[in-house]
Amino acid sequence: MMSTSRIIGSMVAPTRKKSMVASHHQNEITNGNSNSHSHSHSPPKTNAKIVKAQQERKRLSSVIVEDGIEYNKKARKVHKEIFDHPDTIQSAGSNSDTEAPLFDPDCDPDHPKKVTYPEISSAAFVIKNGVQRTPCPRSLQLSQKFEMDLYFKKEYLQVTGSFKERGARYALSRLNADQKSHGVIAASAGNHALALSYHGQQMGIPVTVVMPVIAPLMKIQFCRSLGANVILKGETILIAKEYALKHAAENHLKYINGYDAVDILAGQGTIGSEILEQVPDVDAILVPVGGGGLIAGIAVAVKTVKPDVKIYGIEAETCPSFSEALKAGKPIGVTNRSSVADGLAVPTVGGNSLVTAESLVDKMILVNEESIALSILRLMEVEKAVVEGGGAVGLAAILSDKVPELKGKKVVSILSGGNIDTTVLGRSIERGLAVDGRLVRLEVVVSDRPGGIAELTTTLAHLGASIKDIFHERAWISADVFSVKVKVVIETRGRDHVQEIEEALKKIYSNVALM
Amino acid sequence: MMSTSRIIGSMVAPTRKKSMVASHHQNEITNGNSNSHSHSHSPPKTNAKIVKAQQERKRLSSVIVEDGIEYNKKARKVHKEIFDHPDTIQSAGSNSDTEAPLFDPDCDPDHPKKVTYPEISSAAFVIKNGVQRTPCPRSLQLSQKFEMDLYFKKEYLQVTGSFKERGARYALSRLNADQKSHGVIAASAGNHALALSYHGQQMGIPVTVVMPVIAPLMKIQFCRSLGANVILKGETILIAKEYALKHAAENHLKYINGYDAVDILAGQGTIGSEILEQVPDVDAILVPVGGGGLIAGIAVAVKTVKPDVKIYGIEAETCPSFSEALKAGKPIGVTNRSSVADGLAVPTVGGNSLVTAESLVDKMILVNEESIALSILRLMEVEKAVVEGGGAVGLAAILSDKVPELKGKKVVSILSGGNIDTTVLGRSIERGLAVDGRLVRLEVVVSDRPGGIAELTTTLAHLGASIKDIFHERAWISADVFSVKVKVVIETRGRDHVQEIEEALKKIYSNVALM
Repeated sequence: MMSTSRIIGSMVAPTRKKSMVASHHQNEITNGNSNSHSHSHSPPKTNAKIVKAQQERKRLSSVIVEDGIEYNKKARKVHKEIFDHPDTIQSAGSNSDTEAPLFDPDCDPDHPKKVTYPEISSAAFVIKNGVQRTPCPRSLQLSQKFEMDLYFKKEYLQVTGSFKERGARYALSRLNADQKSHGVIAASAGNHALALSYHGQQMGIPVTVVMPVIAPLMKIQFCRSLGANVILKGETILIAKEYALKHAAENHLKYINGYDAVDILAGQGTIGSEILEQVPDVDAILVPVGGGGLIAGIAVAVKTVKPDVKIYGIEAETCPSFSEALKAGKPIGVTNRSSVADGLAVPTVGGNSLVTAESLVDKMILVNEESIALSILRLMEVEKAVVEGGGAVGLAAILSDKVPELKGKKVVSILSGGNIDTTVLGRSIERGLAVDGRLVRLEVVVSDRPGGIAELTTTLAHLGASIKDIFHERAWISADVFSVKVKVVIETRGRDHVQEIEEALKKIYSNVALM
Repeated sequence: MMSTSRIIGSMVAPTRKKSMVASHHQNEITNGNSNSHSHSHSPPKTNAKIVKAQQERKRLSSVIVEDGIEYNKKARKVHKEIFDHPDTIQSAGSNSDTEAPLFDPDCDPDHPKKVTYPEISSAAFVIKNGVQRTPCPRSLQLSQKFEMDLYFKKEYLQVTGSFKERGARYALSRLNADQKSHGVIAASAGNHALALSYHGQQMGIPVTVVMPVIAPLMKIQFCRSLGANVILKGETILIAKEYALKHAAENHLKYINGYDAVDILAGQGTIGSEILEQVPDVDAILVPVGGGGLIAGIAVAVKTVKPDVKIYGIEAETCPSFSEALKAGKPIGVTNRSSVADGLAVPTVGGNSLVTAESLVDKMILVNEESIALSILRLMEVEKAVVEGGGAVGLAAILSDKVPELKGKKVVSILSGGNIDTTVLGRSIERGLAVDGRLVRLEVVVSDRPGGIAELTTTLAHLGASIKDIFHERAWISADVFSVKVKVVIETRGRDHVQEIEEALKKIYSNVALM
């Protein structure tokens, strides 16, 4: 479980860069079978079963494999261009296109709309049979550990792994007959795309999702298996969004903003109502904040009924867009760095969300990457929950001691989603174990005679340390040509065990360093 | 996330060896504060609040750290003895003690007892408000993938992370007043100990658990935080059990076998009744099998009401004790190898379980380690569930194509527990990713001139492969002194991506090997 990509780890970074190539008309990848989807102008009742069967056949054939290769090639091409010509990369938001900016009437920053309590109640009624009423149990161990009554609202248990289903379901249910027949479109690299695809399939509404080419292949395939028309377009979500708005206008599709449309806010707000039913005497709710839709809906749902319940918004410190917007009194763009909480990386929050939430949020908290990684680990170990970085920020705030005033209180933390990339999960486990002292790097200088390393490794075995990795650095130790520096990565039982190991090794070796 | 413990990984093995040192009277570790527990002969109503407060104070003080160090020292001593004197290790079961073997009247192999349907119904009524009624949702993605209606009974969501709470709760509720006041004792390294500790605390019944010294420190601490008197004794669970029986007799404690007492079977059987309510038209249930208590209870609960529902037992192929017992018609000891499904490693199944289940189980299936690791990975990725190896064997049977007859059927797989060691989880993720082709080892011979490695790593970056690890083997390549063999571990997007990378590299390098 080495996190260190030795030698050139950082060279791979371009694949994850939040960057934008000037010419965004290249690199469009459609899934080739858009004809089989019914969001052209033909009536929607063209036999849905046949379409489904076709999609199923497609899914089970080898097309997906070629699809993947084709996808990889295109994605590589984009990466290579970014890699070879970093000077062409412009900062996000610099749309050099000469066309007039495309406009989403649902989310007009100049005329923001608040979501209201009746809309949330209406959403709760409408989506009741479409989404999971997720459990909200008390955590025995973490309540003890952090000296508060700590509950987790487990939205990651929704079918597609996130709370986004609530808003998507409600927004779809609010379409008129014409919109339902033509279908909807959205730009999303993740949870909103999955949520729309799933509920569109359930409700017989055609769904097109525009994803940036660097979206995870598994999510692309999942959307397709749910019958969505997936268009891969552009290197960033902003380019994908512009394309989606254009495509919507040209093809008569309803564009659904995933974090700021009022119907979306109403749907997400239903979580607040459920929490009040499940934990009636809750004192505070910790809400992850990305674009702001979740906290806006929940704040209205909760404060309308129980104004004394505190609503805390938690952001990754890599992207404090909501905190900054609250200070500025309007959405402003922030430069966001990459984060394990990638789902929260919305550089400019929604205008509707902001105007709805600004007077209702009691506190905004920023959490660092280390605390998010540790939170992911704790949720796995203790709650047996796989939660993505964005869903883990609430516990991150607690464990990094950002909310001392909540000791002794009844607190609900929303585990908003579970769609974390497995390799990211592996790295988070590693980082969390390192923070815990359960994964430790040692440097020991040992004799270079035969048996020198065997002695060290035998000693470590006796001490109960499990060796994960071992390196041998003969050339670079200056002290003594008969010595060799050995770097070892070991698994331990925790800090006390590390202390014991360090003491034992120092009795044998004069040069022991822990990192 | 390297699983290869390079150089000496295997030397650490003794810490995990299922072995037994002849003299088992040494190495007893008590938690030093057994006086603060009320399972001496004093009445049990000694102010429970005070005891709790004491325990809480103890928990929050630094005692635990020292405790850990002390524990580690003792554990290390045992490991060292095994390590230094492997000739003293005897095979399990060779109790050289001169005392008469201790006897558990609830589990007499010569007079086995069957659990009955009324007992399970009674258990269901009694434990209803004490344990979680866990959800049993359909898996959208895995149902599609494996062409069956696949449901997961999520027992890992119990408070202490396993189904063992059901039996423990029921067994505790069945004690008479005298037994309740003196308390209970059990030998367990894991889930049964946690379950008893938790429900003992809830019900005000003193609990003593005897754990082998190599039990995970986190579980030991968890049991203590639940108020249990934890005794660390012996190197294996067999020694711990002998000690527990002896201690029970001496101290008037009721011994509770965790996988074969009839009350335990009745408690576990309630899962079967719940499944019939949650998925009324189920065709088959996949049940993990260790000692046999779970499958015995479920088989009676299900077959009594719906005899046509198939009951499949799934074992790790490293420990086929139930399969062998069914063949032999009686419990027989098997040699078990270490397994990621350590919770199922019961070398001799229970006599009551066997006599109850033998006529009701439709099929026994053995699954290999690779399929269990892949199952753990899939449950994390798709179900967002952290499941221990023993809980993942049902899906392992499906994904290794051991149950082709269940295609098109409605199948419930029981996710029995989630208490997996985090480092084991990390290794399982790695193994699963390797099976998927998402973690790949490459060997490439490159030029030893400056820039040779940079060229390879740049190429891999362009191909979108993320480098996890890289090794440089200058000395050993025979072909050419100007060449160097580079071993690289890369993360990919899957098999198709690997194919693409291989093809691209072979155009540049003449010597490319994938492993």
